[in-house]
Amino acid sequence: MLVIMEKNSTAEQCTAVEAAIRRMGFVPLPVPGRSRTAICVTGNKSPIPPTDLAYLPGVLECISVTKPYKLVSREVHDEDTIVKVGDVEIGGPTPVIIAGPCSVETEARTLEVAQAVKAAGANMFRAGAFKPRTNPYEFQGLGLEALQTLQVVRDETGLPVVSEVLDPESVDAMLPHVDVLQVGTRNMQNFSLLKRLAQVDRPVLLKRGMSSTLQEWLMAAEYLLAGGNHQVILCERGIRTFSDHARNTLDLNVVPLVRKLSHLPVLVDPSHGVGHRDRVRVMARAGLAAGAQGLLIEAHVHPDRSYTDAAQTVDIDTLRGVKRDMEVLAQMESISSLNAEDRVTA
Amino acid sequence: MLVIMEKNSTAEQCTAVEAAIRRMGFVPLPVPGRSRTAICVTGNKSPIPPTDLAYLPGVLECISVTKPYKLVSREVHDEDTIVKVGDVEIGGPTPVIIAGPCSVETEARTLEVAQAVKAAGANMFRAGAFKPRTNPYEFQGLGLEALQTLQVVRDETGLPVVSEVLDPESVDAMLPHVDVLQVGTRNMQNFSLLKRLAQVDRPVLLKRGMSSTLQEWLMAAEYLLAGGNHQVILCERGIRTFSDHARNTLDLNVVPLVRKLSHLPVLVDPSHGVGHRDRVRVMARAGLAAGAQGLLIEAHVHPDRSYTDAAQTVDIDTLRGVKRDMEVLAQMESISSLNAEDRVTA
Amino acid sequence: MLVIMEKNSTAEQCTAVEAAIRRMGFVPLPVPGRSRTAICVTGNKSPIPPTDLAYLPGVLECISVTKPYKLVSREVHDEDTIVKVGDVEIGGPTPVIIAGPCSVETEARTLEVAQAVKAAGANMFRAGAFKPRTNPYEFQGLGLEALQTLQVVRDETGLPVVSEVLDPESVDAMLPHVDVLQVGTRNMQNFSLLKRLAQVDRPVLLKRGMSSTLQEWLMAAEYLLAGGNHQVILCERGIRTFSDHARNTLDLNVVPLVRKLSHLPVLVDPSHGVGHRDRVRVMARAGLAAGAQGLLIEAHVHPDRSYTDAAQTVDIDTLRGVKRDMEVLAQMESISSLNAEDRVTA
Amino acid sequence: MLVIMEKNSTAEQCTAVEAAIRRMGFVPLPVPGRSRTAICVTGNKSPIPPTDLAYLPGVLECISVTKPYKLVSREVHDEDTIVKVGDVEIGGPTPVIIAGPCSVETEARTLEVAQAVKAAGANMFRAGAFKPRTNPYEFQGLGLEALQTLQVVRDETGLPVVSEVLDPESVDAMLPHVDVLQVGTRNMQNFSLLKRLAQVDRPVLLKRGMSSTLQEWLMAAEYLLAGGNHQVILCERGIRTFSDHARNTLDLNVVPLVRKLSHLPVLVDPSHGVGHRDRVRVMARAGLAAGAQGLLIEAHVHPDRSYTDAAQTVDIDTLRGVKRDMEVLAQMESISSLNAEDRVTA
Repeated sequence: MLVIMEKNSTAEQCTAVEAAIRRMGFVPLPVPGRSRTAICVTGNKSPIPPTDLAYLPGVLECISVTKPYKLVSREVHDEDTIVKVGDVEIGGPTPVIIAGPCSVETEARTLEVAQAVKAAGANMFRAGAFKPRTNPYEFQGLGLEALQTLQVVRDETGLPVVSEVLDPESVDAMLPHVDVLQVGTRNMQNFSLLKRLAQVDRPVLLKRGMSSTLQEWLMAAEYLLAGGNHQVILCERGIRTFSDHARNTLDLNVVPLVRKLSHLPVLVDPSHGVGHRDRVRVMARAGLAAGAQGLLIEAHVHPDRSYTDAAQTVDIDTLRGVKRDMEVLAQMESISSLNAEDRVTA
Repeated sequence: MLVIMEKNSTAEQCTAVEAAIRRMGFVPLPVPGRSRTAICVTGNKSPIPPTDLAYLPGVLECISVTKPYKLVSREVHDEDTIVKVGDVEIGGPTPVIIAGPCSVETEARTLEVAQAVKAAGANMFRAGAFKPRTNPYEFQGLGLEALQTLQVVRDETGLPVVSEVLDPESVDAMLPHVDVLQVGTRNMQNFSLLKRLAQVDRPVLLKRGMSSTLQEWLMAAEYLLAGGNHQVILCERGIRTFSDHARNTLDLNVVPLVRKLSHLPVLVDPSHGVGHRDRVRVMARAGLAAGAQGLLIEAHVHPDRSYTDAAQTVDIDTLRGVKRDMEVLAQMESISSLNAEDRVTA
Repeated sequence: MLVIMEKNSTAEQCTAVEAAIRRMGFVPLPVPGRSRTAICVTGNKSPIPPTDLAYLPGVLECISVTKPYKLVSREVHDEDTIVKVGDVEIGGPTPVIIAGPCSVETEARTLEVAQAVKAAGANMFRAGAFKPRTNPYEFQGLGLEALQTLQVVRDETGLPVVSEVLDPESVDAMLPHVDVLQVGTRNMQNFSLLKRLAQVDRPVLLKRGMSSTLQEWLMAAEYLLAGGNHQVILCERGIRTFSDHARNTLDLNVVPLVRKLSHLPVLVDPSHGVGHRDRVRVMARAGLAAGAQGLLIEAHVHPDRSYTDAAQTVDIDTLRGVKRDMEVLAQMESISSLNAEDRVTA
Repeated sequence: MLVIMEKNSTAEQCTAVEAAIRRMGFVPLPVPGRSRTAICVTGNKSPIPPTDLAYLPGVLECISVTKPYKLVSREVHDEDTIVKVGDVEIGGPTPVIIAGPCSVETEARTLEVAQAVKAAGANMFRAGAFKPRTNPYEFQGLGLEALQTLQVVRDETGLPVVSEVLDPESVDAMLPHVDVLQVGTRNMQNFSLLKRLAQVDRPVLLKRGMSSTLQEWLMAAEYLLAGGNHQVILCERGIRTFSDHARNTLDLNVVPLVRKLSHLPVLVDPSHGVGHRDRVRVMARAGLAAGAQGLLIEAHVHPDRSYTDAAQTVDIDTLRGVKRDMEVLAQMESISSLNAEDRVTA
C-alpha cells in the first residue's frame, strides 16, 4: 500500500503515519517525489484495510499496490525516472550510447578507444577493471591499476565512466574513479552486494540475470531503492534458452513491459545479447525500436586485439552506424504515446 | 557439394553429371537459378572429393557446402529469393504486412475486417479455417465453410489470402481458395505434411517450431525445397523459454542470422511473439528493425469479439500505426549493406 | 463437471441426462467405468451450477472437475488404468520393458535383436518403420517393408510390437502389423493424427512433446479419450532446455505428478532422455524409482551397427542389467502408498 | 597438462618442475594425492608439447588434460574424493542424509527438529542463518543469533552443521559455528565468494546455478580447488526451464555425468528440485538411483509452521521413509561398476 500525503502536510504528520504503520507490524518506506510526499507500506503478506490509515491527519489517499515490488513500480511513482550522470540524462527523451572495450587495457590503448567512441557519438565510456570469468585460469582484469586508467579517461575525455563491481569490498575503492557502478548478470541476486550499493550515492546499472524473470529483476532493483538508492538503470543483456545460434537470447519483449511496469530507465546490451559482432548493429536497432532508452556496446579501435570478448566487440565505424540508426529512429512516434494506448486497451 | 554447370552446358551434360552422382551412391538435386544451372549432391555423410566430378564435360566448378541444409543455403543460392503472391513480392526491398483475424468468422465480419486491414495498408489477408487447439473441447475453426469465406474475401478485396493447413488430407481442399499455405509452429517437423506441400505449386509460410533450433528450422524448409517447392517464406513467432512475462519469447536474434545463412525471406509474427495486444506494435517495430521482410499480425475491427486469440489481436488503428512505423524504418540503411559488412568482419 | 449415475440407473435415465446437458449448450461425454456409469460435461467455459443436473432421475451426484482436461483426470476416473496388449499389462503393479532397435533393419537382424531382448526380459518389442528425420537427406525408415518384418517378429517371438505412426494416412497400413501405435515427440500436438487415432481400437503410446507442459501433454491425451480411445500410455522422453550435457533433459519430476493427476500409465524413455548409451541404465533406474510403470529402451545386438541412434542404443548385456535393477526396485514401498501420503500432506 | 612425478621423487625435483613450468609462461598447481605427487599446468591456451617437461629428473609421465577444468577432473585425480566432516564421510560407499529446516528458527524448535532428524537417520543438520530472498521485504534469516543456535545443535546432537554463506565478509563469523559452508544457486558464480572460500580449511557444498551448464559448475568448483580448498561437495538442485509443473526441473541426467567426469562427491536436493513436499520422497529415491552420494532435504517437526519454504518441507515420518528407501537402494549394483561398463562402451 502507498499512503499519499497532502501537499501541505507537515513533517510531524508524516512521522505520525510512519509510527502508525509500525504499530500495525509493517515497515514504512518514504518515497521521494517532486510534487508530493508518499509513504510505502511494506512487510505485509495480505492486503491492508485502507481505513486504518486513510483518516490520519495529512493523508490524502491510500493506494493499493498490487505487485510485490513497490518503489520501482509505476503504481507508486508515475513519471519516468531520469538518472543524471554528469551532463548525461538516462531515461529522458534521447537515448544514450555507452561504449568501450570489454576490459580496461593499457592506458594508451584505453584512452585511444575512449576518444574514438566519443568522436563516434558515445555519451559514456564502459570498461571492466574486475572481470568475472567462468574459467579461474583466465585473465581477471587489471584491477586497481585499471581504476587509475578509468580516472585518466574521465579526465581526458570528459566521458562519465561505467564499470562492473564484483563484491561489497571493492565498492570503496571504485567510488572515486567510477561514475556508474554496474552489477553484472551473475550478481543480479547477490543481495549482499545490492544492500551495499543501496547505501552509496552513485547510480547503479543493474543487468538482468541470465535466468531471471521480470519480477525477480524488478525485485533486485527494489533492494536498491528500498535501501535508499533511487538512481537505478536497468539493462537487458540476453537470457539463457535452448536456442544455440547466439551466445544469448536477447529478450526484447521485456523492454516495453519494463517501461510499462516501472519508472526506471532500461537499456539494451546487444553485444552480450547476440555475442557476434556482425549482428550487434542490427540488434542495437531492434533494441531501440523496442523502446530501450540507451545501448551498452562493446567497441574497440582494433576489435580483434581486445583482451576479452573480441568476438562480440565492434569497430568504431559500426558504432558510427549505430549513431546514424539512432537518428532515424528518433523520428518514430514516441513510446510514451504507445504506452498511453496501452492503458486504454489493456 | 554443389556442381555449377557452365552457362552454355547442354541438357545431356547435366544428365551425365546426375548419372555420375548416382553412381557415387548419392542423390542429385537440380537447383533452379536465373543465370546458371547447378546440381546439388545430397546423401553423403562425409566430404566428397571434388575431382570426381569437376572434370566432367560442361562442369564449371564444384563448391563444397558446409551445412546439412543445402538448397536453402546462401552458399548454394546467393541472391535473395522473392516469393510472388499475386502482385505482392515477399523478400524484396519493401516489407509486407499480412493481417487479419486469428480465425475466419462470419462472412460479413470477416469481409469487414479484410476491407479494414486493406485500407490500413495490409498487403495480404490472414485468417484460420482450421485451428490447432490445445484443448479438444474448444472451437476448432469453421473448416470448409471458412474456405468459402476466404474465397469471398479474395474476390471482394483482391487481397491474397494466407491460411493454416493442418494435415496432408486438407491440402487439396485448400488449394482453390488459399494463396499461401501456412505451416504452424506445432507442425514445423510434421514431415508428412512438409513432403505433401513440397509437391504443390503454392507458396508455403513455415513458422518456426516453438522449441526449434535455427538449424532444425532451415532443415524443415529444406524438406520443401528438396521436394520441389522453392516458394518458401520463413516466420519467427517466438520460442518457449523460462521467461514468463509474455506468451512466448520473440527471438529476434534469429532474423539477421536467417538472412545471412539463407536466401529465403523471413517474417516476424509479433502477435504470437508477445501475446498481448498492447505490445504488438512496438515489437513489430523491433522485428522490422532486426531485418524482417514483413509482419504477420492478428487484427480485427472489434478485437475483444475475436473468436480466438483476442488478447493478442490489435485494432485497425494500431495497424495504421504499424504502417507509419514501417515508413520511418524504410529510411534506415539497408540490411544488405549490413550483410556486406558482416562478410568483411566475420 | 462429472455426473455420476446410480448403480441401478437405466439407459433411459442416462439418455435424459445427456439431453439435459445438450439443452444447456454443452457436450456430454460418457465415461466408461467398471462399477458405475458417469457422464462428463464438456464445452463449458465457467463452472456449472450442479443443481441443474443433480436432481434428474438416476443421478447419484455431480462432481466439479477443476482441470481443463477431464477424461484423463483422476478426478473423473480414480483407479489406475491398465492397458492390456496381448498378455502384457501396462499400468499394473509390475513395470514393463519395451526394447528393440531404433529402426527396423533387415528381417534377420531385426529378428535376432527381438529374440535377444526377449531373452533379456523385455515384454514388448519396439522398432521404427517410418522415421521422422530432421534432415531430409537421411534414412527415413524402411516403410511398408518394415511392417512385414514386424509381423514376422510378432509371429516368431510372441512379443507385441510398438511402432511410430507419422500421419493419419499410414494408420490403416499399420493396424494389421502393430500392437501399439506410438506418437512421437514432434507429433504430440498433431491434432489431425490424434483425432484419427482416437477412432481406432488400438493402444496409443503418446510421447511428451519436447517443449510441452504437463497440461498440454494431458490435453493431447484428452483428444484421444474424448474421441473414444481410452487405451493411452504416456511416455516422458526428455525436454529441451539450455542444459547441453545431454541430448535432452529427462524431466523425472513429471512422473509422480502424472501419476497423481491422471489414471493413465506413464513410462520413461531413458534412451532419448539422455542420448548416451553409457548413462541409459542408470537413468532407467532413476525413472523407475520416480514411479514410471515401464521403460522404452533402444537396444541392439550390435549397437554400433544400428541404422539410426547408435549413440544411445545399449547392448543386450546392459538390458539384462536393467532387468536386475528392476527386481531390486520392486522391493521398494509402492508408489500408491506414497500417493496416499501425498493426499494426506498435500 | 598434468605432470606425474615418480614415487621416490624429491621435493627439489618438484620445485624444479614448477620452475620450468613458470619459465614456459604457465602456472604450476600441485595436486594432492595419496600415493603420488603431481603438478598441474594451467594458464595455457593451446596444448603443450609434453617433451618439454617429460625428461626432467623425477618426472614419470606427462598427461594431457582435455577439459578447461583441471583439478576437479578425473583425468587428473582418478579415485573418488571423500570429504570428511567429523565422522561423516561424503563420497564414500554409503550415501548421506543432510536434513533440517530451511531457516534456523527458535533455539528450542531448531533443537527439536535436529533431534528428530537425527533419530530418523540423518547424518548432518542443515538450516539457514542468512537467507537470500528474492523479495527485500521478506524474512532474511536470524543472522548471527542463528549461528549461536547452530552451535547449540552441534553440541547437543553431535550432528555436523551445514549452513549457507552469502558473502566473503560473513565467512569469519561462520567458521566457529558451521562445519560445511554452503554456496547457494544464486552465488555459484560469485567469484569473490569462491576465492575467499578457497582459502579456508572447511568443506564447501557448492550448489549448481539454476541456469548453469555442467562445465560452468565444474569450473566454479575449480575456483575452490585452484585456490587450495579440495574439500568440495557438489549438489544438483534443479534448473530453470519452460516446464511449469514444479518449482525447478531436477536435472538427474547430470548426476552420472558428474561422477564420470569428476572425482568430487555429488548430492541431490529434491526439496528445491521439485518444490512440493508430497514429491520429495519419490524424487529422493530417483536421485539416489541416479547415483547421488547423498541428499539435502528440508524437514521439520511441523512443516506448515516452517519460517520459510513450508511448501517443500517434509515431516519426520517422510524422512524415515527416505531412510528406508535408501536401504533398499543399497542392494543395487554399485554405480562404480556401471562406470566401469561406461568406460568400455563409451
